[in-house]
Amino acid sequence: MAASNERIREVVESYVALVASGTAAEIVDLFAPGATVEDPVGSAVRTTREEIAAFYGTLEGLQQETRLVECRIAGGEAAFHFEVRTTTDGATFTLAPFDVMTFDDEGRITSMRAFWSDADMTVS
Amino acid sequence: MAASNERIREVVESYVALVASGTAAEIVDLFAPGATVEDPVGSAVRTTREEIAAFYGTLEGLQQETRLVECRIAGGEAAFHFEVRTTTDGATFTLAPFDVMTFDDEGRITSMRAFWSDADMTVS
Repeated sequence: MAASNERIREVVESYVALVASGTAAEIVDLFAPGATVEDPVGSAVRTTREEIAAFYGTLEGLQQETRLVECRIAGGEAAFHFEVRTTTDGATFTLAPFDVMTFDDEGRITSMRAFWSDADMTVS
Repeated sequence: MAASNERIREVVESYVALVASGTAAEIVDLFAPGATVEDPVGSAVRTTREEIAAFYGTLEGLQQETRLVECRIAGGEAAFHFEVRTTTDGATFTLAPFDVMTFDDEGRITSMRAFWSDADMTVS
C-alpha cells in the first residue's frame, strides 16, 4: 500500500528541516535504496547512496535556515516549494526551489527532482 | 534545441490565462501532438487530443480567475504554483495546484501533471 499523505508530509517536513541542520547521513536515511536525485532538473542524475551523500555533504557546516512554503501531495508523490537561506561572509543567499518527490510504500524517498536556476537566487 | 526559459515562461503564462478565460481549443493548441495530461497526479492519464479537449472543456463557461504565483524553470521543464478561483452559486472555490510541465523544442507542452487534492480546496 502506498504511503499515506500524512506520512509523505512528515518526510517532506523532515527533509526540509534536515537540509538546514542535518548531516548528510541523516538526509540520506530518508531515501530508499536505489533512489535518484536530480538537482537541478537537467543536471546529471545521482544514482548511488555515495553520490547522494556527497551531494548533501556540501551543505554540512553551512549556516542555513529553511522553511516549507507550500506542499501538494497526490498519487503518492509530493511537489513542494521551500526556501533555503544561506548566510556566509555577511551576505544571505536565498533560493526557493520547487521539489518533486516520489516515495515507496514505507514513505522513503525514491526520487527527488529540484526545479530552480541561478536566476532564482537572491542576495541580501 | 530545447525551448528557451523565456519561451517556456510565456507558455506557462498563456496556459494560466487560458484556464481562466480561454476555450478548450485554445488550451489544447498549447500542447504538442502526443501530449499527456495527468490531473490530478495519480488519476488516469489523458493521452489523446480529444481526451485533453474534453478535460478542458469542463472549464468553459465557468466564472474563473487565475494567477501565476511562482514558477521555476530548469532543464527545459517547468514547475509552477498557480491559483484558480471559481465563483458559482455565490461561493468562491479556490484551488492552487502545483503543475509540472515538459516541452518540445518549439515550446509546446508535451506533458502536464497537476499536484493537488480535494483537501487543498478552500471555499469562501
